[in-house]
Amino acid sequence: MRFRPVDTSFYDLFAQLAQHLVGGAALLAEMLGDGNDRVGIAQQMRDAEHAADESTHQLIRRVNTTFVTPFDREDIYALASGLDDVMDFMEEAVDLVLLYEVTTLPSELAEQVEVLQRCAELTAEAMPRLQTMKNLEEYWIEINRLENAGDKSYRRILAKLFSGQYEALEVLKLKDVVDSLEAAVDAFERVANIVEQIAVKES
Amino acid sequence: MRFRPVDTSFYDLFAQLAQHLVGGAALLAEMLGDGNDRVGIAQQMRDAEHAADESTHQLIRRVNTTFVTPFDREDIYALASGLDDVMDFMEEAVDLVLLYEVTTLPSELAEQVEVLQRCAELTAEAMPRLQTMKNLEEYWIEINRLENAGDKSYRRILAKLFSGQYEALEVLKLKDVVDSLEAAVDAFERVANIVEQIAVKES
Amino acid sequence: MRFRPVDTSFYDLFAQLAQHLVGGAALLAEMLGDGNDRVGIAQQMRDAEHAADESTHQLIRRVNTTFVTPFDREDIYALASGLDDVMDFMEEAVDLVLLYEVTTLPSELAEQVEVLQRCAELTAEAMPRLQTMKNLEEYWIEINRLENAGDKSYRRILAKLFSGQYEALEVLKLKDVVDSLEAAVDAFERVANIVEQIAVKES
Repeated sequence: MRFRPVDTSFYDLFAQLAQHLVGGAALLAEMLGDGNDRVGIAQQMRDAEHAADESTHQLIRRVNTTFVTPFDREDIYALASGLDDVMDFMEEAVDLVLLYEVTTLPSELAEQVEVLQRCAELTAEAMPRLQTMKNLEEYWIEINRLENAGDKSYRRILAKLFSGQYEALEVLKLKDVVDSLEAAVDAFERVANIVEQIAVKES
Repeated sequence: MRFRPVDTSFYDLFAQLAQHLVGGAALLAEMLGDGNDRVGIAQQMRDAEHAADESTHQLIRRVNTTFVTPFDREDIYALASGLDDVMDFMEEAVDLVLLYEVTTLPSELAEQVEVLQRCAELTAEAMPRLQTMKNLEEYWIEINRLENAGDKSYRRILAKLFSGQYEALEVLKLKDVVDSLEAAVDAFERVANIVEQIAVKES
Repeated sequence: MRFRPVDTSFYDLFAQLAQHLVGGAALLAEMLGDGNDRVGIAQQMRDAEHAADESTHQLIRRVNTTFVTPFDREDIYALASGLDDVMDFMEEAVDLVLLYEVTTLPSELAEQVEVLQRCAELTAEAMPRLQTMKNLEEYWIEINRLENAGDKSYRRILAKLFSGQYEALEVLKLKDVVDSLEAAVDAFERVANIVEQIAVKES
């Protein structure tokens, strides 16, 4: 067993970053709801994205200036930027809905967003467990399962988009939104893979 | 000369992973043939993709739990996930053909698939040579040449797709398929670059 | 303070690579001008891209064969391939304009290209300062500011493309060009982030 006296704030920053993702996923769900204030939601999303950026930068600066880190420096970078990627993709989806003036969103999108909300919760719950490296396996297994489910929704949506019931320009718009959501799910899976890798190394 | 007593099974796993790519490229060629059972082929492709995933996970677990690795840990990760990426893109192409119900595929796609089949064979032949690090140069030079040829096919196909003879929705569908094939070729080149980097470091 | 006697040629190669980007951005601006010889410009762009590839390969070979490097080996790789990525995206944009026979380019594209030209100049000016690690902060702050401005242009262009005034096929073509330009701006930001990370570590 290695003994490493470390600053706990690394864990706090990871937990904080993951909390921003929970908030972002909730805003995404609101954005898809009918009759909501999309301009206002998009603004809140941008704020959430900036807050996540800020936490990521704090983490990276701390890694660069700390002598003893709780786990390998490159794993901390990878985890921080992996979490930040999720936020960027969620913000992109919200932004595109507004920018393209998408009016009717296929109902299948709600499935993708539910997957994202569940992934965000699981990730936020898992971050504090990095401190003991215990009970993390259930987290990454469940994320992988959710990613598979998300992938199936994604493919169903694509088949629907290209079925002929939408105009080409509408397909282009919706595909960009759906691709951003899919990229966010994939980014959650990459985070889980990084956590798995860290856990295996440190155990 | 460093002396590193190593478990040969790393090489076996890399060879196995590359063999899955040879199988995948063959399925891709079948998918483009007329009158073939596309549903059946897509299912075989999914199985091949899962098998490749399995080999990749085995490699990563072994790296994480082995004290002496045949070459740098991060290079093993990079090579394993590089090979896995190729498989993901080939599977994506097959899946999109089925999902979008693409009926007529431009004949130029066959050129891209031939490039992929040749890349897969060369890569599978090169993997066992990692053990001695000999005669690898001809492999990465040839892959780079094939990637250039593939790139030219890709650009010819794009020009054809946008020439006006296809409807916008059909262009969208075909471009997704063609982009997946192009991404698979690029992923083969990244694998060759990783091998080159390993060979230069270890020599 | 560490004392590292180093070969200055690493810095020369980085400066040279960044100079290719200045040249590439100028060619991009010419490509968008009316009445210019697009075939000739595209050929010059391909030559510039090959020259950048050559510098990148020289850098990577030198890292692999040099015992003492001016900063961490993986940072040199990251910086070299980050600069090379910028070139690839700029070359892609030029190539697509020619390949798709895009005739009228929305005027907003010029804004994106101005951002790219400014980023290229700042990056080329910053490279020699890696030797002393002084006065780099202003560089990465300004690149981040430019990337934000570029992002706003990008979104304005997307909104215009999808406003209904363009045909779906034209939207597809222009979006590919605009996405390549946006990817080039993002790649400049990644380069600046790598420089920041190196500077913080080495200071």
